[in-house]
Amino acid sequence: MPLSMTDADSLLAFAERLADAAKAATLAHFRQQPDTDDKDDGQHGFDPVTAADRDAETAMRALIQAAYPDHGILGEEHGEKPAQGPWRWVLDPIDGTKAYIMGLPTWGTLIALEHDGEPVLGVMDQPYVGERFVAAGGRGALIRGGQRVPLRTRGCARLGEAILATTHPDIFATEAEADAFARVSAAVRMTRYGCDCYNYAMVAAGGIDLVIEAALKPMDISPLVPIIRAAGGIVTDWSGGPAATGGQVIAAGDARVHAAALERLAAA
Amino acid sequence: MPLSMTDADSLLAFAERLADAAKAATLAHFRQQPDTDDKDDGQHGFDPVTAADRDAETAMRALIQAAYPDHGILGEEHGEKPAQGPWRWVLDPIDGTKAYIMGLPTWGTLIALEHDGEPVLGVMDQPYVGERFVAAGGRGALIRGGQRVPLRTRGCARLGEAILATTHPDIFATEAEADAFARVSAAVRMTRYGCDCYNYAMVAAGGIDLVIEAALKPMDISPLVPIIRAAGGIVTDWSGGPAATGGQVIAAGDARVHAAALERLAAA
Repeated sequence: MPLSMTDADSLLAFAERLADAAKAATLAHFRQQPDTDDKDDGQHGFDPVTAADRDAETAMRALIQAAYPDHGILGEEHGEKPAQGPWRWVLDPIDGTKAYIMGLPTWGTLIALEHDGEPVLGVMDQPYVGERFVAAGGRGALIRGGQRVPLRTRGCARLGEAILATTHPDIFATEAEADAFARVSAAVRMTRYGCDCYNYAMVAAGGIDLVIEAALKPMDISPLVPIIRAAGGIVTDWSGGPAATGGQVIAAGDARVHAAALERLAAA
Repeated sequence: MPLSMTDADSLLAFAERLADAAKAATLAHFRQQPDTDDKDDGQHGFDPVTAADRDAETAMRALIQAAYPDHGILGEEHGEKPAQGPWRWVLDPIDGTKAYIMGLPTWGTLIALEHDGEPVLGVMDQPYVGERFVAAGGRGALIRGGQRVPLRTRGCARLGEAILATTHPDIFATEAEADAFARVSAAVRMTRYGCDCYNYAMVAAGGIDLVIEAALKPMDISPLVPIIRAAGGIVTDWSGGPAATGGQVIAAGDARVHAAALERLAAA
């Protein structure tokens, strides 16, 4: 369901309040060498949870509960609150926790609003760098220093011209996944690792042509879907189906390079 | 030769003018989808050179030539101007060109002043994020928003506690190098890719414990040596010798984890 312009503006203003609340918590602990717990599930290695993560999500949930008590909430740290109706907020207070604890400015706060499971509003906020990527009602922008600049992906006709990014080679847990990624990587101009949600924001901003990842959670990707789409990009799972629930995800700035990459991902 | 405090202050003020001049050129082209040339030498894949790179170095060289005509200059883009005496500036206008053309805020402008081949002053400037890591006369700081915060590495006694970073797995060109890196990587808490010079700055800031790389050029590392040392860290080649000329480099925040990593790098 596309949001009406009025709804889009007011809901995006509210989502920006959530990002502001998260920012207070995330910046308070950034580069402070916070305590970390290990929530390693044995599959993905070291996965720290910081106090900042929890505080930021708690602050956002309180604002949602007060303003929209019927809306559902799915958060990285505090689980799911069921919705009384079609609306659900999906929150990742710090996407890129590892970068965060290293002091690198490449993490982000991710916020989506979904309607019947379809993300219709998205925010990726990087408060240390001071940039906020937003989309609602099909319009996307980068907000920085009070300026609002429209987002637009760049054209990329062929894999041979494409810049491909992914967070880490180890996110491809099976040999089949690693092989599929390698088939695309072998065909592109260059492949780079690192940067979590920033890679998707750079697809929307026209700096990166392809992001291919696996084992994503809904909160890792749902908030980025409206941003990439509003900029003219395409984001799906590896079969071309919906991406917002996570798993194997591919984002592209141009439908042609998306199609070419899907072919290689699917090859036997 | 340690700089006197007076010399350190005035030379650092001058080096900051160089960083300001480079900033004007690098930010003018950042996220503008600049033209790129391919200076690929067949070994390291796609290696773009941007107009920003050249303009930033030209601006810095002109300032040095005017203020210190006897000083040598070694630059990434415009080669070497021999010194009439012991002083040489080493410049990398954009370290992390690939991140730059992707629009990621993880590149930096690197500036060193060497005395008889020994780096005694260093700057790592990230003008988009707005942070500048500096060191001269044995004192280091992060300058941001008019604030000057001293840099200090963190303690790390064992490899099992260490966060290890490197720019990309492909920088280890030989099997022996890749194996040596893998031996350290297997022993640490976590290994992350990406971020070029930012990783070294984060060693100085206490967020990363180890950076291990190979095939570095002098301008990739010389400017970072004084910053890491002033913060209490250690940076050498893989044999424990000087690092400023590049090649195989290891930087650590704590001498204990440096020694432990050197052992694994050297193992047969």
